Amino acid sequence: MPTINIEQPVLSRNDRLAASLRERFAASGTFVVNVLSSPGSGKTTTILATNERLRAMGFTSAVIEGDIASDVDALACKDAGIPAVQINTGGLCHLEGNMIAQAVDALEAGVGLENIDVIFIENVGNLVCPVDFDLGEDLSVMILSVPEGDDKPLKYPGIFQHAGALLLNKVDVASAFDFDMPKYNQVLDDLNPGAARFEVSARHGSGMDAWCAWLRSQIEEKAKQC
Amino acid sequence: MPTINIEQPVLSRNDRLAASLRERFAASGTFVVNVLSSPGSGKTTTILATNERLRAMGFTSAVIEGDIASDVDALACKDAGIPAVQINTGGLCHLEGNMIAQAVDALEAGVGLENIDVIFIENVGNLVCPVDFDLGEDLSVMILSVPEGDDKPLKYPGIFQHAGALLLNKVDVASAFDFDMPKYNQVLDDLNPGAARFEVSARHGSGMDAWCAWLRSQIEEKAKQC
Repeated sequence: MPTINIEQPVLSRNDRLAASLRERFAASGTFVVNVLSSPGSGKTTTILATNERLRAMGFTSAVIEGDIASDVDALACKDAGIPAVQINTGGLCHLEGNMIAQAVDALEAGVGLENIDVIFIENVGNLVCPVDFDLGEDLSVMILSVPEGDDKPLKYPGIFQHAGALLLNKVDVASAFDFDMPKYNQVLDDLNPGAARFEVSARHGSGMDAWCAWLRSQIEEKAKQC
Repeated sequence: MPTINIEQPVLSRNDRLAASLRERFAASGTFVVNVLSSPGSGKTTTILATNERLRAMGFTSAVIEGDIASDVDALACKDAGIPAVQINTGGLCHLEGNMIAQAVDALEAGVGLENIDVIFIENVGNLVCPVDFDLGEDLSVMILSVPEGDDKPLKYPGIFQHAGALLLNKVDVASAFDFDMPKYNQVLDDLNPGAARFEVSARHGSGMDAWCAWLRSQIEEKAKQC
């Protein structure tokens, strides 16, 4: 029986694009972070608070914002003095390599890629589909927020297995929710024992220095290899 | 140029399945609610709290649970004495008609469809993809929770436009978050002025009686038509 495999060619095309993006980022010495989470877990707040600390360490950042619609997050980044490019996916539930290539062209034409130490890609808020699309990033960060509940790694294991760093955000409101920290950590011990874990409040600052110190070590590790 | 439109046949097949499900639900006099939200907005808690109130009104319920993996939600429903069927999508980011048809077969073989007044379908936590798949439901309910932020209707307009009822959940913790209620309502006035809106705490009960009274009116309206 003849079989038309739709998934394979799309992913291969994206993989080729991701490899070419990765070369481009290596040439300019830019470290790229793909930021993943549900809608409303605090991706933009985390990026802004991380950028503030990286800036104090002497690093420059830029942001690529992926949204179904609107430009509220890109405007928030620009207000904070960070070069930002908005991608509106027009309904698509994840970012793909071709969109990132266009956004990187815009950053190149603007501030110049060689002047950007770190690019944060804020993916569409979705715990499922973004995992399948390599964007040429050096690091995928998964942000879960306390109000979402401790059972999310059990229910969406793929994205928690995929991430290189796991941030638990909004720990400042933990007392209002019955988030079971040992249970959460136990599931992650099984799913992804190698990923670095941080408990943070991006809004109020707790845990952010530890996360940014670790991120700095990753950025400097890449710089040594380039 | 020959064009192969992948989207059309898949959706048409789903639409046929949805129509046949709708006939089946009409024949048994079962009202079906498709429950949509991000991961962790409180779908299961809302379903359990709604069921409790519907049960006191004399209605029987069942639940179809859609998850990427795990059966924690279906077990929670069974613990509450509600017949529940778990669908594990194995990575797929939404439910489709063929999965619901199988789950309904299981309910038919178990308690019998004619003995179920209301079926809650808990969709996969995702604000994008589930909208495209009619499941034969009478009502789509979109649950946003306060910790996710007031900007979600701007960023994910499709699902807020699609829903017949809009629940804002976790209002009991509103003081810990800077959720701008007038801004949220203003965007919904534009996107979907016809949808009924409720501010609730599924966990602590506030607003749940108003929501359940409205839901009862919808259920009785359908019963009159069948």
